[in-house]
Amino acid sequence: MPRYRDLTHTARPSDAPRVIEPKNPLRTIDQGALEMLKVAQEQHIETVFDRFVAQQPQCGFGYKGVCCRICLAGPCRVKTEEGPGSKGICGATAYTIVSRNLVRMIAGGAASHSEHARHVLHTAHAMVEGNAPDYEIKSPEKLHKLASKLGVSILNREDQEIFKDVTEIAYEDFGRYQDRPLAFLESLLIEQRRNKFKHTNVMPRSIDGTVTELMAQTAMGVDNDPVNLIFGGIKGALSDLGGEYIGTTLSDILFGVPEPIVSESNLGVIDPKMVNIAVHGHNPVLSEMVVTAARKMIDEAKKVGAEGVNIVGICCTGNELLMREGVYLATSSASQEMAILTGALDAMVVDIQCIYPSVQQVAECFHTKIVTTEAIMKTPGAQHIAFNAETAMEDAQKLVRIAIEAYKNRDPQKISIPNERHKLVAGFSLEALTNIFSKINPNRPISVLTDAILNGQLKGVVQMAGCNNLRRPQDESHIAILKELVKNDVLVVATGCSAGAIAKAGLMSPAAVDAYAGEGLKSFLKTLENANPQLSTGLPLVFHIGSCVDNSRGIDLVMAMANELGVDVPKVPYAASAPEAMHEKAVAIGTFGVAMGLPVHVGAMPFIEGSDIVYGITTQIAHDVFGGNFIFEMEPQEAAKKILDALEYRTWKLRVHKQASEKFDTQIAQGW
Amino acid sequence: MPRYRDLTHTARPSDAPRVIEPKNPLRTIDQGALEMLKVAQEQHIETVFDRFVAQQPQCGFGYKGVCCRICLAGPCRVKTEEGPGSKGICGATAYTIVSRNLVRMIAGGAASHSEHARHVLHTAHAMVEGNAPDYEIKSPEKLHKLASKLGVSILNREDQEIFKDVTEIAYEDFGRYQDRPLAFLESLLIEQRRNKFKHTNVMPRSIDGTVTELMAQTAMGVDNDPVNLIFGGIKGALSDLGGEYIGTTLSDILFGVPEPIVSESNLGVIDPKMVNIAVHGHNPVLSEMVVTAARKMIDEAKKVGAEGVNIVGICCTGNELLMREGVYLATSSASQEMAILTGALDAMVVDIQCIYPSVQQVAECFHTKIVTTEAIMKTPGAQHIAFNAETAMEDAQKLVRIAIEAYKNRDPQKISIPNERHKLVAGFSLEALTNIFSKINPNRPISVLTDAILNGQLKGVVQMAGCNNLRRPQDESHIAILKELVKNDVLVVATGCSAGAIAKAGLMSPAAVDAYAGEGLKSFLKTLENANPQLSTGLPLVFHIGSCVDNSRGIDLVMAMANELGVDVPKVPYAASAPEAMHEKAVAIGTFGVAMGLPVHVGAMPFIEGSDIVYGITTQIAHDVFGGNFIFEMEPQEAAKKILDALEYRTWKLRVHKQASEKFDTQIAQGW
Repeated sequence: MPRYRDLTHTARPSDAPRVIEPKNPLRTIDQGALEMLKVAQEQHIETVFDRFVAQQPQCGFGYKGVCCRICLAGPCRVKTEEGPGSKGICGATAYTIVSRNLVRMIAGGAASHSEHARHVLHTAHAMVEGNAPDYEIKSPEKLHKLASKLGVSILNREDQEIFKDVTEIAYEDFGRYQDRPLAFLESLLIEQRRNKFKHTNVMPRSIDGTVTELMAQTAMGVDNDPVNLIFGGIKGALSDLGGEYIGTTLSDILFGVPEPIVSESNLGVIDPKMVNIAVHGHNPVLSEMVVTAARKMIDEAKKVGAEGVNIVGICCTGNELLMREGVYLATSSASQEMAILTGALDAMVVDIQCIYPSVQQVAECFHTKIVTTEAIMKTPGAQHIAFNAETAMEDAQKLVRIAIEAYKNRDPQKISIPNERHKLVAGFSLEALTNIFSKINPNRPISVLTDAILNGQLKGVVQMAGCNNLRRPQDESHIAILKELVKNDVLVVATGCSAGAIAKAGLMSPAAVDAYAGEGLKSFLKTLENANPQLSTGLPLVFHIGSCVDNSRGIDLVMAMANELGVDVPKVPYAASAPEAMHEKAVAIGTFGVAMGLPVHVGAMPFIEGSDIVYGITTQIAHDVFGGNFIFEMEPQEAAKKILDALEYRTWKLRVHKQASEKFDTQIAQGW
Repeated sequence: MPRYRDLTHTARPSDAPRVIEPKNPLRTIDQGALEMLKVAQEQHIETVFDRFVAQQPQCGFGYKGVCCRICLAGPCRVKTEEGPGSKGICGATAYTIVSRNLVRMIAGGAASHSEHARHVLHTAHAMVEGNAPDYEIKSPEKLHKLASKLGVSILNREDQEIFKDVTEIAYEDFGRYQDRPLAFLESLLIEQRRNKFKHTNVMPRSIDGTVTELMAQTAMGVDNDPVNLIFGGIKGALSDLGGEYIGTTLSDILFGVPEPIVSESNLGVIDPKMVNIAVHGHNPVLSEMVVTAARKMIDEAKKVGAEGVNIVGICCTGNELLMREGVYLATSSASQEMAILTGALDAMVVDIQCIYPSVQQVAECFHTKIVTTEAIMKTPGAQHIAFNAETAMEDAQKLVRIAIEAYKNRDPQKISIPNERHKLVAGFSLEALTNIFSKINPNRPISVLTDAILNGQLKGVVQMAGCNNLRRPQDESHIAILKELVKNDVLVVATGCSAGAIAKAGLMSPAAVDAYAGEGLKSFLKTLENANPQLSTGLPLVFHIGSCVDNSRGIDLVMAMANELGVDVPKVPYAASAPEAMHEKAVAIGTFGVAMGLPVHVGAMPFIEGSDIVYGITTQIAHDVFGGNFIFEMEPQEAAKKILDALEYRTWKLRVHKQASEKFDTQIAQGW
């Protein structure tokens, strides 16, 4: 047995809200953002970095999860170790309060991802009903594959017809009342996980029903058993995954399955000679149309003196468009205000999630127009253009026109765009990866990856995900952990603002392979490159697999690896890491990662330290039941070590399993 | 125009968390609870009253609603008037934080009521599918009436078949994705309200979808417009009403429409010679079976030396059983622990909501068994008997048997039952009220009530609702406000723990009429009594209309009054009051009351004082849009005055309207 540390007993972080004192007092390592921060300071424009400092010290009761505001008798706090002050007015103890709060965060996450998916679904549904003329089925292959997995017949049927059936099943997944599991989720799982979820009674029946049930379960005077509550939370997290998978698959059908594509990232992609429009948020249904509209409206832009229209992405809307259209990724969540500070952003079109309310306040110091587009997301002072699937292109043109108009009001004195921009290669859907692997082994493409792990060329796969959280300097943990992993021959796939951090730092390029990859990873990537001469570019150090709903692509990959290896997930050398987790969505993602059987590193402490029981469930009991567990570790070097240890332990388990089954096969062959 | 105070400009309560110093240092005026509190103090058993004191002072940030824990970058607090400390890290201002927190409470309330309704629906569905042999259609009349309102054909069809269609519609109401409003809710509304909700875009499409949408809308980086958020909250509150109405109507069909019934209330109903079982929570599906089982198991009880089995109710499960079966109401929410302290409670069978986690801790000092029964409500240390519609009677018998077994372990030394018990008359469903009115006017029964208001005999109707909240001594505000209202000739209908407070204090009896009713109310009730010789009892001072889901009965009544008067709700002299609101459900109920066009008094401040905008929306803008508004007033005498003013203003508006339309009619008749 190799060097092995018991990861289920992760050292407990200290009691106080933990903000690591940054070596960089500006709290970001993003060079583009750093340049703009100087502008903000000179012009006395308040940004998230100021507000983070102003909020310190943060409330210890809330940070530990022992503050309850679930009824109007509160707020209550667990103030003492024992006696009446150790419980809420109703008698809820720390473990109840902590787990209820945690479960409500998961419910918020599941609701967020599923609301995103619901919007894509509404658009798909409008399309198949003939009411959304600007949309089409871009990937019939994906549709057919999905339909087959869902049991929808594809023989001798029109794609529209097939897609209609698929959308009906997706709608059922939101609102089903019959005692059947989520169809999309079930189609994603290997049998062992399906059984595990069935036996532990965490398989959701419907997404909306589960979110609602969780809100009811966590209401005052209902569940107070932390185990029952957390199992409820796991059900919620699996609903989140179901929602994500609906979002990813339907987006792929409507907008195309991503394929390797070259682009650039960081604020330098904002072009002073162009009308610049940032699309920000998460949902591609509108932003895809904005890209198409912009391409048609170059002449209008020229009339106001610009050379054209430059769409740049922020946060996960950026990732969606980068993956499918090669749109520049301007920046990620924590530095969203910085794009406005360049003075050359004419409009920021936002959809949902992770959009700082402050963008409007910053925009008011410039000529930039903030435009909200979804019914559930408005901002006082910003313009609202309601987006409808029925009139998508018309709406998109309106949005581009707002930016073209705003361009006229630019103040040249205020323009200050950082030079920082880096080449990158993105677009690695599971289909794209499989295609690349298949050039080496057309029959069993995933074995190319699993064999590389079994023979020691790779140490495993890590899915880097999640947000920015200014408890540590922006991007610092993402980059530090990434560097450590690739140096140790880990294949990294990345989503969301983790992918953003990597891209902005120039580490998502083929050039970064030589600089940062260990020998094993380097040779693995070279072998793939040599077998794929059709690729117009070298392979990058990290495979960008998409936005935060696309964490479902990672689950799809790990399912394929488990299938290939003939084992359940807890034996697959695959881990997840969210070094700067921030959103409730990240809490849901991390939880389904653990339920799926993965070690999940989180670098920003969720609000659970107020209960040893809840802490123990997430780091230990979860492992006993599901084979996955949380690793809470704020310090990036230490985190990387723990992730590597988890992979090593799994590789060891896997090899033992393989050797045992090979021995068994030999004995069988020898007539034993 | 009469004396009229502008109720939309209610005086703002002071800034600090407001706990009125009680004249009664024991924080309850319930005589039964007071006796048991002495026992608790003597035996050093911790109760809610101790924990309330230990929690003081409560956190001012949470109380004002300006604490945000919606993402892992937090907790954030609005700490300063301006600058970076006046916003959360993301830039969310006080109005965003306050309204998001408020909307999430409404979502929690809507989820709670709808989860209750969903459980009744599952039971009904199992019954029509032939899988729940212990249930039956007790009220075919209610089924037929409801079916007709929902557009389900009843001609030449079996009741089972009709009910199946009704349950299908109810399920659709939970999970519908088509752009159609909730069917049950729509069937409840008068046309003017339907139009109002349509025009203001707050008509929900599905209950679960709305709760999920609200969670997504309030997630980090989504909505930050307080008006948009609160309109979302109103949609959520209307979903709550839709859920309540499903719960009430299906329960009536399965268990019978309540009719006037005599019973008793307060802890004295616990009988030392009987096996005592408290049923506690909200849902009648199991507790109805427990009542039936208990009636069959007298012999088993006798074998252990008891005289029989005595079922007593607590909180809204108590109200459900009191309304339909005349089961004694032992106590209400804040004094639930006191039932155990009598030492003569053998088991407490709980379902969902408002069950203090502490009941298990208190029970461990006695022989009492706590048994949880629902999958979403467990308590560490308590026994869990999973209740299924399929095996309901068997499960119920198991539960009764647990109590019979526990009876053997009673410690006679510990038995101390207060003498306090009061006669009451309950069971006033809208059907029962209509039936009583119809003896005076068979064609237009509701005119009996509205005419009494128009001619000044009554000042109007007030629906008293909601919980206990120990910010004020338990029940004190309920009773003080009630006394003031009835003295001023207001007809009071009551639900939930407000009804419980009134019943426990002996004010829900015919005897209380002479002692407390004003002359108008007295004569109104006498007239009804004289016209209804079939009633075996006099009419009570207050009409108990049910549990907290039965607030929908009040809405049904106000709709009938509006119809009768030919006006929209804002002209109907009808108000609501929740003097001790506590649960998220109360927040949802209050909000739909306002949306429905009612003045809604709340005697425990919701967490909104941190934003003048949100405060203004709830007390003023709501009135401009919906014709209803919140009246926040902690002091009961002052609250009663404000409620009476609101009724007076409405009566004046109504009379002006009536005079104008009569004048118009006369002119028409004169050929004008």
